[in-house]
Amino acid sequence: MSLMHELRKDPVLNRWIIAAKTPPGTLTDFVTKEKEEPDDPQSCLLCAGREGSTPPEITAVREKSSKPNSTGWLTRVIPNFNPMLQIEGELNSEGMGMYDKINGVGANELIIETPEHIMNNRELDVRHVTRTLLMYKERILDLENDKRLRYILISKSYGKAAGALYSHPHSQLTASPIIPQRIKEELDNAKAYYKMKERCIFCDILREEEKTGERIVLESRDFIAFCPFASAFPFEIWIVPRRHECSFQETDGKEIADLGLTVFTLLNKLAKLLNDPPYNLALHNAPNRIPRREHWHTLGDDFHWHIEIVPRLNTPAFEWSSGFYLLNIPPEAGAKYLREV
Amino acid sequence: MSLMHELRKDPVLNRWIIAAKTPPGTLTDFVTKEKEEPDDPQSCLLCAGREGSTPPEITAVREKSSKPNSTGWLTRVIPNFNPMLQIEGELNSEGMGMYDKINGVGANELIIETPEHIMNNRELDVRHVTRTLLMYKERILDLENDKRLRYILISKSYGKAAGALYSHPHSQLTASPIIPQRIKEELDNAKAYYKMKERCIFCDILREEEKTGERIVLESRDFIAFCPFASAFPFEIWIVPRRHECSFQETDGKEIADLGLTVFTLLNKLAKLLNDPPYNLALHNAPNRIPRREHWHTLGDDFHWHIEIVPRLNTPAFEWSSGFYLLNIPPEAGAKYLREV
Repeated sequence: MSLMHELRKDPVLNRWIIAAKTPPGTLTDFVTKEKEEPDDPQSCLLCAGREGSTPPEITAVREKSSKPNSTGWLTRVIPNFNPMLQIEGELNSEGMGMYDKINGVGANELIIETPEHIMNNRELDVRHVTRTLLMYKERILDLENDKRLRYILISKSYGKAAGALYSHPHSQLTASPIIPQRIKEELDNAKAYYKMKERCIFCDILREEEKTGERIVLESRDFIAFCPFASAFPFEIWIVPRRHECSFQETDGKEIADLGLTVFTLLNKLAKLLNDPPYNLALHNAPNRIPRREHWHTLGDDFHWHIEIVPRLNTPAFEWSSGFYLLNIPPEAGAKYLREV
Repeated sequence: MSLMHELRKDPVLNRWIIAAKTPPGTLTDFVTKEKEEPDDPQSCLLCAGREGSTPPEITAVREKSSKPNSTGWLTRVIPNFNPMLQIEGELNSEGMGMYDKINGVGANELIIETPEHIMNNRELDVRHVTRTLLMYKERILDLENDKRLRYILISKSYGKAAGALYSHPHSQLTASPIIPQRIKEELDNAKAYYKMKERCIFCDILREEEKTGERIVLESRDFIAFCPFASAFPFEIWIVPRRHECSFQETDGKEIADLGLTVFTLLNKLAKLLNDPPYNLALHNAPNRIPRREHWHTLGDDFHWHIEIVPRLNTPAFEWSSGFYLLNIPPEAGAKYLREV
């Protein structure tokens, strides 16, 4: 079947994508066919019982009687085995001819989400998801005090096709003296929008999505989850808090419990609809404001933290070289499938 | 081996990447291990002899006696089988609540580079590479007259892991009423640099690369090929013309012959060094200036066309969500390997 297409503009990134205008004849093309070879949990370094084989833990949620670097934990944070950035040392920014570089100061941590080697998202427990999100908050609150760090990026890769190095459920934290490009574009464009309209672009998007409803996947007490108008990937989902707030770490316990249930439900929907596909999840948070509080005092108005989930269903091709994405299922059709599963 | 890392800034995209500071212990990690299942040329629609199974050709380089849509061609251009954009119709830009969209007007073509089903870059002939580049120029010169089109993107994907749909050598052309985001960022930042310094950023980069020499892979009469200072991917190569020129289509026959030999040599080096890896190649050209010549009269000064080649050696993970790339081999080490192979 030949699909009709249209060009759509992402208002946050000012990025045009090519979107199919008609729903696909069948969902089959998007369902994960080849499941990855399961890893042998016997050789997994992240499982409970192998604490001696990892770098010493940074923090953990533990049963009362248990000791650091032994079993009895529910969530455990360790430095990455081969850290990309290291926490020791002064920050040195220097020129190199016409180029700029900074030494590799920062942090690179693994947040191990479960003691057991859970291989399928449908076997995850909602309590693990919520505990993981609470740990995100705890790590940000700790690291934002480090004046050398400008951004704390937390993301999760599930499945080798999504770039995960381990099949054991885990998230990755990267704190660095710079703001990653994709996040910086979002911040800059959200700021420009605020300057022009004196309104938050994400609050405007929430109003627009609630009005039409056709891209909404679910609404909880505190969050709205939807397939964005100009998604770059099929079944991409954004989870945006109803309450305007730039910093994830300002989220209270009740909100995090609601967010845990929301993420849990969405991952289950994706797993059920698309045969437990590989995915990436990323927290889009405000930069670390503590080091430069004086400059960022307006940031609370122009940014709005959120989570983006992207299933990895096909190989991007010319997108890589151009940033011009082809979406072969309209977000409205994707959202409908996800609502109904 | 634990690698030392540093943060490096791409001056064109203003993008920071994390680069390993020390060369890898061994090259083996980067060499393609699993070769893809070879396609059966019997079922290839792009091979000579199957002209009746493709959409009618747009243009071709042919032996004198041969007729359109029959054998006897050397390079052949056809509309894509499932075009993303269609050449018919008026351009309609409209709002949809707070969002913007444009109907799918544009062109989407396949440039078939050889009549034979060549499966390995090491078997490509330099004449095919040069003929393909001449066809890029011919297609741009034709399509730039269409006032609805703002950008003509030409790229090549080689291997399934790079997103190629066919194993037969081919390039893809996408002409659209918008400028793809990655290209737009380059144009905008090059313009800002020019405004500040009154010099072309690419000319400055060429001077810098020639001065240090350590990232240069090869220099031809008209081109310099190097691994950029803040590469996003291992063994990424940019081919930049020595002569400042914003439009690829202004390149003369002698320059294209020199470019053909340069691209051919680089693809052979990559194939030999990394076991014929999947790759993407993209032409970064100025936007289509004819429709708005009055606004673009200064563009010739602030942009500089070039080609980017990116081997696909590993799966990007958290890069996808953040635009924050991890480069696990320094460009200086990559360039040295490529120079010496």
